[in-house]
Amino acid sequence: MDERLKRQIDFALEIDKEKNIFRQTHLTNHGRNENDAEHAWHMAIMAYLLREYSNEEVDIAKVMLMCLIHDIVEIDAGDTYAYDAVGLESQKEREDAAKERIFSLLPKDQKEEMIALFDEFENCESAESKYAHAMDNLQPLILNDSNNGGDWKEHEVTSDKIYQRHIKTKMGSEILFDLTDSIIKENIKKGNLPK
Amino acid sequence: MDERLKRQIDFALEIDKEKNIFRQTHLTNHGRNENDAEHAWHMAIMAYLLREYSNEEVDIAKVMLMCLIHDIVEIDAGDTYAYDAVGLESQKEREDAAKERIFSLLPKDQKEEMIALFDEFENCESAESKYAHAMDNLQPLILNDSNNGGDWKEHEVTSDKIYQRHIKTKMGSEILFDLTDSIIKENIKKGNLPK
Repeated sequence: MDERLKRQIDFALEIDKEKNIFRQTHLTNHGRNENDAEHAWHMAIMAYLLREYSNEEVDIAKVMLMCLIHDIVEIDAGDTYAYDAVGLESQKEREDAAKERIFSLLPKDQKEEMIALFDEFENCESAESKYAHAMDNLQPLILNDSNNGGDWKEHEVTSDKIYQRHIKTKMGSEILFDLTDSIIKENIKKGNLPK
Repeated sequence: MDERLKRQIDFALEIDKEKNIFRQTHLTNHGRNENDAEHAWHMAIMAYLLREYSNEEVDIAKVMLMCLIHDIVEIDAGDTYAYDAVGLESQKEREDAAKERIFSLLPKDQKEEMIALFDEFENCESAESKYAHAMDNLQPLILNDSNNGGDWKEHEVTSDKIYQRHIKTKMGSEILFDLTDSIIKENIKKGNLPK
């Protein structure tokens, strides 16, 4: 096999491991924990279908790809729960090492492209990355809401912490932030979240 | 919530069920069965990274979206194993009913768009759908090859059946068909597949 194609296939096999990285979010109907690959798949479809609500015009292919690859580093670095303050401290260091190892499996040009895309997502400055972050926040929110806020209860998350996280949702989409806000308020009313 | 947005969110929640549709393919390292959402995620990333091998120029956003949604109908219709002759007979009827029910959750314009995209994939005539089919075939092939052909052994699949399926791989990519061919030959040599 040609060296370039071999590297691409090696990478494709390596990322299979993302299907074993489990998140704190549970599937609808009080299902099992969701894994990163499923989360990324779900986000990418939502990104396409909800693109009309992005604050800024976006290159939707770029957004979808960003959604699909944004958690690949967790193969080595593990999932860091959005409300885990201790884990969040060391997250960047762990993810940087993972990024270097995993994307280095690819041919050099594709390694550079994927790292640039990953970094663009992380920096949350471009229109695409802001909108992708809105998806990264909205997707677990609607699952959790469908399960009566079970994930928040389990981790004793408070609404102010959630609002803090959703600053990025607002950067990506005012309309989807309004939806988020109404879902949070509804969960406070139901007693699923302390105020 | 606005009626349009409500329909979009209802659809997003509904497709969460695809994460519980399990396939015959097993994850690498002799892992568990893969589910449809994971398979679609994997295919979409591979489609992007391997697009240079498509026989024809493709709109990669369209290909990725096609990969992401092509198995949504299996939420109702279930997964039909590629080499299950009996299941394949009733597959179209089951999938048509599922397609109508599930995509009808979306606003009308998006329902029509998604059904057209699904049908385009199924018809395997456009450049995008031929290349997406190559991904649909290559992704489980490399997983199965990494597991010494365990899925083929389990279902007593023969190489002529596999070659028959991979006619579509060749329609999408001559180069990836050559890779497929060499993987099949290697597995015959290893005794993982009857000739």
